[in-house]
Amino acid sequence: MLTSAAQGVFPIAPTPFLADGSLDWVSTDRMIDHYVGCGATGVTILGIMGEAPKLDQDEAIAFAARSIARAPQLPFIVGVSAPGFAAMRSLSKAVMDKGAAGVMIAPPSSLRTDDQIVTYYAQAVEAIGSDIPFVIQDYPLTLSVIMTPNVIRRIIMDNPSCVMLKHEDWPGLEKISALRKFETEGSLRHVSILTGNGGLFLDFEMERGVDGAMTGYAFPELLVDVVRLQKDGKRDAAHDIFDAHLPLMRYEQQQGVGLAVRKYTLMRRGILASDAQRKPGSALSAMAKAEADYLLKRLAVHDARAGKLV
Amino acid sequence: MLTSAAQGVFPIAPTPFLADGSLDWVSTDRMIDHYVGCGATGVTILGIMGEAPKLDQDEAIAFAARSIARAPQLPFIVGVSAPGFAAMRSLSKAVMDKGAAGVMIAPPSSLRTDDQIVTYYAQAVEAIGSDIPFVIQDYPLTLSVIMTPNVIRRIIMDNPSCVMLKHEDWPGLEKISALRKFETEGSLRHVSILTGNGGLFLDFEMERGVDGAMTGYAFPELLVDVVRLQKDGKRDAAHDIFDAHLPLMRYEQQQGVGLAVRKYTLMRRGILASDAQRKPGSALSAMAKAEADYLLKRLAVHDARAGKLV
Amino acid sequence: MLTSAAQGVFPIAPTPFLADGSLDWVSTDRMIDHYVGCGATGVTILGIMGEAPKLDQDEAIAFAARSIARAPQLPFIVGVSAPGFAAMRSLSKAVMDKGAAGVMIAPPSSLRTDDQIVTYYAQAVEAIGSDIPFVIQDYPLTLSVIMTPNVIRRIIMDNPSCVMLKHEDWPGLEKISALRKFETEGSLRHVSILTGNGGLFLDFEMERGVDGAMTGYAFPELLVDVVRLQKDGKRDAAHDIFDAHLPLMRYEQQQGVGLAVRKYTLMRRGILASDAQRKPGSALSAMAKAEADYLLKRLAVHDARAGKLV
Amino acid sequence: MLTSAAQGVFPIAPTPFLADGSLDWVSTDRMIDHYVGCGATGVTILGIMGEAPKLDQDEAIAFAARSIARAPQLPFIVGVSAPGFAAMRSLSKAVMDKGAAGVMIAPPSSLRTDDQIVTYYAQAVEAIGSDIPFVIQDYPLTLSVIMTPNVIRRIIMDNPSCVMLKHEDWPGLEKISALRKFETEGSLRHVSILTGNGGLFLDFEMERGVDGAMTGYAFPELLVDVVRLQKDGKRDAAHDIFDAHLPLMRYEQQQGVGLAVRKYTLMRRGILASDAQRKPGSALSAMAKAEADYLLKRLAVHDARAGKLV
Repeated sequence: MLTSAAQGVFPIAPTPFLADGSLDWVSTDRMIDHYVGCGATGVTILGIMGEAPKLDQDEAIAFAARSIARAPQLPFIVGVSAPGFAAMRSLSKAVMDKGAAGVMIAPPSSLRTDDQIVTYYAQAVEAIGSDIPFVIQDYPLTLSVIMTPNVIRRIIMDNPSCVMLKHEDWPGLEKISALRKFETEGSLRHVSILTGNGGLFLDFEMERGVDGAMTGYAFPELLVDVVRLQKDGKRDAAHDIFDAHLPLMRYEQQQGVGLAVRKYTLMRRGILASDAQRKPGSALSAMAKAEADYLLKRLAVHDARAGKLV
Repeated sequence: MLTSAAQGVFPIAPTPFLADGSLDWVSTDRMIDHYVGCGATGVTILGIMGEAPKLDQDEAIAFAARSIARAPQLPFIVGVSAPGFAAMRSLSKAVMDKGAAGVMIAPPSSLRTDDQIVTYYAQAVEAIGSDIPFVIQDYPLTLSVIMTPNVIRRIIMDNPSCVMLKHEDWPGLEKISALRKFETEGSLRHVSILTGNGGLFLDFEMERGVDGAMTGYAFPELLVDVVRLQKDGKRDAAHDIFDAHLPLMRYEQQQGVGLAVRKYTLMRRGILASDAQRKPGSALSAMAKAEADYLLKRLAVHDARAGKLV
Repeated sequence: MLTSAAQGVFPIAPTPFLADGSLDWVSTDRMIDHYVGCGATGVTILGIMGEAPKLDQDEAIAFAARSIARAPQLPFIVGVSAPGFAAMRSLSKAVMDKGAAGVMIAPPSSLRTDDQIVTYYAQAVEAIGSDIPFVIQDYPLTLSVIMTPNVIRRIIMDNPSCVMLKHEDWPGLEKISALRKFETEGSLRHVSILTGNGGLFLDFEMERGVDGAMTGYAFPELLVDVVRLQKDGKRDAAHDIFDAHLPLMRYEQQQGVGLAVRKYTLMRRGILASDAQRKPGSALSAMAKAEADYLLKRLAVHDARAGKLV
Repeated sequence: MLTSAAQGVFPIAPTPFLADGSLDWVSTDRMIDHYVGCGATGVTILGIMGEAPKLDQDEAIAFAARSIARAPQLPFIVGVSAPGFAAMRSLSKAVMDKGAAGVMIAPPSSLRTDDQIVTYYAQAVEAIGSDIPFVIQDYPLTLSVIMTPNVIRRIIMDNPSCVMLKHEDWPGLEKISALRKFETEGSLRHVSILTGNGGLFLDFEMERGVDGAMTGYAFPELLVDVVRLQKDGKRDAAHDIFDAHLPLMRYEQQQGVGLAVRKYTLMRRGILASDAQRKPGSALSAMAKAEADYLLKRLAVHDARAGKLV
């Protein structure tokens, strides 16, 4: 079961499809193996980048079961955000039965006031049960819901089963500091904070006190390295390797088209068999593919110079 | 199967729950019987006011099956709006198998540009199949998607299986005129237009050329009367009975709390056993109930004067 | 100077233009005279319905000066909402110099969290000075800013110069009750609450404890009558006259096109010389004018029956 | 006068304030001199990052006059976006009288449909006059208005006085390609396209066919270099210097707090005397300043290695 002591890197896994849109189990296994191989401490599936709404419930459960079975030693977090609590509850129960360690819940975009957000999480916990550890997803850019540090504190303190914040506010550095200060002051119990936003601020987020990363950047080994170097106090080294990847990270972190870049890169790396998405989805133009290729080539040159092989 | 010749009144049915939140089959039957008895020409279930997202898929299918089986002589439209096409497809197939006449699709609130909206409906039709008649739901106040008359025309002309527009733009009178003018000019084929918005403009909407109403006002017999009188050219009489109901219609058409007023009224009328909603839902305060009671009393006095019994 | 004891009816004045778009001073005087004649206790100018952003600052100040000078015995509230505090400050100073009794401030639509809203009003007061009485405008439907009762309380308690709430949340009846309950409990000092929303819920709003109306319905005498009858405890009589006007009030309270209906009605009543709006603005179609005419005719018939002349 | 042949770098100038919030004329002159010195081909003032709404109209005109007078050889674009056309017209006339080369107009966030956006620009041109060259600002992330390539084409083709697009959609690379393809196909006349978004995609935007940059990154010399190298076909060299700046560019391109980073950096570089903003504004925490300092130090090390001095 997921706890508030979680740390390290939980890659956000895309859902692999074959060219005909069916689930690609071989790529699923290979992808999970890759995560294990590069030092991931957990995996998150069926998140926003996991094309969760494009699966029906049977497919979602089957994908969770397959992924979890491939690496039962790792904690799996499953996105269960849904337009209503009935679907959220039934999916949560099903994936926990399959061995998930916890679930992640994003707020619906209709929420506006502080109280609406707090009430929503209380009702979600009532729906799924307070025995299932859950993660708050704080992603205003996509979800259009703004949670202040104070609101996040209220959710955490009201719900003992909240064990983690997936932080991807933008800008978000001060929010991390505010939450950690609450902890120091004693007004907030500790929860794990892992950061998203494509990793675009991971260099400084680690210095602000987070426990690691939860994002789908196509080079999870880079995320693992940055987290480890920062934990070891090797600041300059962490920034050096981070900066080398930033041009690609930035290219991948384009709203909408980002998933296409990510799947394309994972395919180029031999991890996915296809970069297919289900509809609706953005395909890469020939020019975009050439741009991604160019960035991958520059990265390879950099790594060769640095004595590494990608 | 639903066709573009549909007219009259399709009540938007709420989903009846018992006080413990379980589906109330007895009230479901009584409610459908009431619709039949008062002259409804069809029924719409699992719409926004039907608390559809609060049912899991098995419940949704069971509710559709029960409702349809109670009045197989009427065409049933089932709301199948979903965050992704996989769920929309599986629900559509399931309810058509149970005897539904067509489905209703609302656009997701993330759509903004004309092309995005047109593309969304094309993909939805591809997902459910072009053999299932469908209804466009145009409800900007709640859905935050603005469809111009031109966009609606594009959807209708691109998709032969589109047979109806549920119109509830606000203001919306000019939109009706624009669409009917397209038809007269020959740039748009005929589809049925039924109007929502709690019936708040039904008096004039009929004069603008719509075919009837699709809304959940707790007195569907009033909707039937207004539609009939307007079709018979009895304008003043139509407005007279409409105006008598307007204070309650207005009270019922309050965003969010409106469903609570509607269920309370249906309970007061003996149609529903309980006004229970699943969470999240707005309960009526004691004062709100007293206000609804007061309006019902005034309506009863009016009807008694007019020689009618509610 | 405006105080928290204000009550009665403050019509929201439109800004009269001639057909060529220039300010119409003759109609301005006649309109203010009409308000005085029908028992208004104050007037609000340059609100959302006053087309304020379509005037440049010199015009706005001139219009305020002319209006105030015509009825110096009444308190005038001037809308000073602006995209920045510099413009808000300079307009506030200017209109107070011309004899305004206070200003009204709407929150910019970018505000989301409770704290953002509270901070905005604190900064606005700092900008205009704490010696100018101000009114909070709470109009989520148009402004997209949702203020909970708790947030309104914080603004009122933080800023002694806040003397009034223009309440036009929808639905809003429970909000009124919540605020008045805060007062009873002693956690909120008294401020005047006047309601907007085209008057569509004024019948019940008075019963919930508001002090009157601030809206631009084209028959301000109806608002005055409803407020007076409710204060005198004549509930049924208040509802009777209210209900007779509701069909027109509902027609006038259409987002966007509502101002066109309002100006058209005021022109039909001989108060405005023209129903011209500056761009951008919605013109009435011939059919819409005929609909408004029909409603006015029905109202005249009703009033004739009731022994009144409009 | 600004023409569709404009190219190069037009820095977005912040508005310099002294610590007490008054306009800082000395820094204004120094900033303009800096732009001239580093090869800017024009300057844009009173944009979103120029805190334009925080100036009253007299201040805005004075700031424009001072800036323009300092470098009369360069074309100045002045942001004239306003909540209404009256203010837009009076500001446009005033700044053109002071020597501006053109104005920039952002759409108000209330616009949604294609037709609404096209109509808005038609009315804006009618308001300011068709003799003033204008720039479309396409910035969905902040303005919440989504313009498709087709909508932009309609605005350009409908309005001969449109000479430039400030492109800052995100993602935006395909939009550039689509617009340039329209040109090649002959369905769109040529206009200048300069890109914003803090420069975050300038490396590839140049390759997609834009004419340069219009953004406020605190090292405009970097923008000038990237534009020049790309025009000279030195792709790898352009990316090399771009990548070195990307960590800081990314840090500066944080919504809301970005302007604080930018002003802080300009102050650190000796260009601005103070990083003061008028309210509302985001101040940098001590930790954020330390992060910016760290990035500046890394940049200096890089430049020293590369044989350059910042």
